[in-house]
Amino acid sequence: MADRAALMEQTKQILREQSYYRSAGALMSWDLWQGLSEDGRPFRNEVSGYFTRQAREHLVSRETAQVVSRLQEFPEEEWSSPYERAAAKLLIKSFQHAVRIPAALQVEMNEFTSMAQGKWRQALQQADFKAYQPYARQLFELKRRTALALEPHEDPFDTLIGEVDEGLNAKETGMIFSVLATGVSKILRSVRERHAAIDNSVLSFDCEHEKKKRITLHILEQTGFDMRKSSFFEVLHPMCTGVGPQDARVTTNYRNLFAGIFSTLHEGGHARYNYSSNQEAQEYSLWGGIGGAMHESQSRFYENMVGKSREFWEYFYPYVQSECPELRKIPLESFYQAVCKAAPGPRRIGADELTYSLHPIIRFEMERDYFAGKIRIEEFEEIWNEKYREYLGVVPQNAAQGVLQDIHWASGHVGYFQSYALGDLYAAQFRHKMLQDRPDAYSRVAKGDFSGINQWCLEQIHQYGRTYTPGQMLQKATGEPLNPQYLLEYLKEKFCTTCSAV
Amino acid sequence: MADRAALMEQTKQILREQSYYRSAGALMSWDLWQGLSEDGRPFRNEVSGYFTRQAREHLVSRETAQVVSRLQEFPEEEWSSPYERAAAKLLIKSFQHAVRIPAALQVEMNEFTSMAQGKWRQALQQADFKAYQPYARQLFELKRRTALALEPHEDPFDTLIGEVDEGLNAKETGMIFSVLATGVSKILRSVRERHAAIDNSVLSFDCEHEKKKRITLHILEQTGFDMRKSSFFEVLHPMCTGVGPQDARVTTNYRNLFAGIFSTLHEGGHARYNYSSNQEAQEYSLWGGIGGAMHESQSRFYENMVGKSREFWEYFYPYVQSECPELRKIPLESFYQAVCKAAPGPRRIGADELTYSLHPIIRFEMERDYFAGKIRIEEFEEIWNEKYREYLGVVPQNAAQGVLQDIHWASGHVGYFQSYALGDLYAAQFRHKMLQDRPDAYSRVAKGDFSGINQWCLEQIHQYGRTYTPGQMLQKATGEPLNPQYLLEYLKEKFCTTCSAV
Repeated sequence: MADRAALMEQTKQILREQSYYRSAGALMSWDLWQGLSEDGRPFRNEVSGYFTRQAREHLVSRETAQVVSRLQEFPEEEWSSPYERAAAKLLIKSFQHAVRIPAALQVEMNEFTSMAQGKWRQALQQADFKAYQPYARQLFELKRRTALALEPHEDPFDTLIGEVDEGLNAKETGMIFSVLATGVSKILRSVRERHAAIDNSVLSFDCEHEKKKRITLHILEQTGFDMRKSSFFEVLHPMCTGVGPQDARVTTNYRNLFAGIFSTLHEGGHARYNYSSNQEAQEYSLWGGIGGAMHESQSRFYENMVGKSREFWEYFYPYVQSECPELRKIPLESFYQAVCKAAPGPRRIGADELTYSLHPIIRFEMERDYFAGKIRIEEFEEIWNEKYREYLGVVPQNAAQGVLQDIHWASGHVGYFQSYALGDLYAAQFRHKMLQDRPDAYSRVAKGDFSGINQWCLEQIHQYGRTYTPGQMLQKATGEPLNPQYLLEYLKEKFCTTCSAV
Repeated sequence: MADRAALMEQTKQILREQSYYRSAGALMSWDLWQGLSEDGRPFRNEVSGYFTRQAREHLVSRETAQVVSRLQEFPEEEWSSPYERAAAKLLIKSFQHAVRIPAALQVEMNEFTSMAQGKWRQALQQADFKAYQPYARQLFELKRRTALALEPHEDPFDTLIGEVDEGLNAKETGMIFSVLATGVSKILRSVRERHAAIDNSVLSFDCEHEKKKRITLHILEQTGFDMRKSSFFEVLHPMCTGVGPQDARVTTNYRNLFAGIFSTLHEGGHARYNYSSNQEAQEYSLWGGIGGAMHESQSRFYENMVGKSREFWEYFYPYVQSECPELRKIPLESFYQAVCKAAPGPRRIGADELTYSLHPIIRFEMERDYFAGKIRIEEFEEIWNEKYREYLGVVPQNAAQGVLQDIHWASGHVGYFQSYALGDLYAAQFRHKMLQDRPDAYSRVAKGDFSGINQWCLEQIHQYGRTYTPGQMLQKATGEPLNPQYLLEYLKEKFCTTCSAV
């Protein structure tokens, strides 16, 4: 008993120190966008490289190794809480990561991705995938080596997926995506023509900068977003950075009023998950939420299932109308149809809610087939275009609009795209259960009361941070394993029924 | 020879690692004002406390101790450059600091100042020095203990001063200040009446926020400020934070157009010094400039001796007039007199250029007399008020306007104030030499060409970072030791002659 307590204390202490490095790293990464001067970059690279090495050295030290080996021998069922269990697992996993991936490989990966992103930007500007091909190939192979270093006996793509979305593999994910893609395509076929007729030009009017900012912040605050645990900035790229357990930084840009609102709701969803860990999750350094698909489910949920709900705009539309004379003659119904318009296009970012998941599914399938040896990098552009024609009925005009559009295959995020589509699946399953638990959640939104939704997310998901695996979390919150039908039913309801009356 | 090189390599490596901690600490400190959320503070305190301890542990490690002991034995004259000499000295000094100040005392100081600042704010709000007295006493005593820990056989106040302005002591500083105070008082007496008649209300007109920002930034850029090595933000407190050798963050606020311009020129002066270290100074981790009075000399120089020069406004006034219709009927001469108006008042911040130094001199004298046992904290308010009456001819209406106005005696900055007055002295001596070397420096400013001034500062001072002591730097750049007459001559010329024609 005393042994267990002492071992857990040591575990917590090591995790806590690691979380300090994580916090410093997150601050430096946020600062890249926020304050770092152009000429300050080389020194910053030295500083962040140094702290990355320090964190790793603490993790692979003899002291940590001893703690880890005792943790590995300790019977899992004897931990006194899910937090203890999760902390033990987290330290073991972090240790194995640090030990199994050689420092030289890590350095190679960092240097390569830093260089490759420059090459990717050049290729993107010239819409020339051929110019980027050699780097894409090298990156995929570096990822394969990393995966094999981590799990020498596993399929590398399974390992990469499992690193982002613990517990999942390529086969299972592929099966779920096949159901999802078929279902979405079917809905798309049945609504395509009607939605094409929806006029969404009402959403594009000039709006001065300060007004965009004021409206966006007003909406965010009204939805119960906690400004004491967050900060809000405007930079080129919308993102959310968790710097501490109660310090989630949201950035957005307001190039277009409504794009800015939805991007803020999205990043705000990440931030809510980020800053809402309970005391135990904080104590055991499990704050911040489960990465990958689970985090994406919380941002997509707030952006689409809350922010693009009819009730949301029943409440906020009069306010936005009062701020924007351009909308005063547009009835709520026309406005709402414009917001929800399904308009399949070649780009993932900004894609409508119905067809969004098809974009990451295409990328997932290509990664899977690459690692299975079925396709080569040289064929990527052609296959990409074929898949877009097949799934979305559109063909990118060039590589910049197509295979080169995302930075992921230059920044090292291979085996990552599945999380975007899985996020929608998780979100819909959570939504279904929330409506069983709190049937009035949305009718309260129509009155400006977001507490039903926020409380459910907090109690069922957010407070636990990363105490559970994604599968455990889904099971715990909804009582069942992943079921793609919830998303399909939700999309069908939203796009075939609710938005059908043009 | 090989020995020397190896020893210096080790020294550079340790200093470099320390500079990484310094950079991370500076970023966290900047972030307090910029991004950190309200509820994020407790965790941030943990993180920054951890890295402070880590930096200290590296510094007191056995490896560092061995390097330091070899450095102490190494004959100073055998180092091959001033950079090597300075690096050796810096490491020895940092090591002694870390070793001599017990960790417990450091923690006590940090915790006390953190608490005392809260007490100071409360006392300030109620203008009640009595309420703050016990904390002031404790802080002064903590500083005495720190000084004695550092130098058991030295006078504690000398040690405190030497920590901020290396090479100076209380006696020498007191003698210089006595000359300065007498000279300033004499000038003040002769111009007081005339300056009282100058109408400076022309400087206070409403100006919208974006316009203030645009004008301030335009001026800063026109003076050759390097925006690639700096960033510029608006927060409550104007300050400059050096996060890296080419990453100096300037903040300002624009509550009033001209206050904002001068505060930006001031912080920009710090930033120029901060980001201009040459390759060697960077290589030996000597970047960022000499602290204390020398740094203040560079900010005060740009704020006053450049920014409040007639030539500066000959160039910029037409631009400001074109932006601000309020000024179009005010002739340059009236405007310039308003800018330079001497108006003795109870507050240090915002004091005019002529009487500014009297404020820090008063504080210095009180600290000196306290440590000499001549006065007690209980008498501070009364003595403060007497000195203000004597030196400035004004009496603060209450403690908030008087003895409580600065945060320094709550934040641990005892033995610091002298640097503000010394900064003016250094700046005037530099200016005198610059005009000998480059007689056309100011006439070029009148044409918008700041390169003469900027080049001189860069070549003579900035590039060396903290390679030299303040005394060496002054001697190297001006060929003589500190001479208070340069400031007095400059002030006399500016306030008695130039600005006399009302």
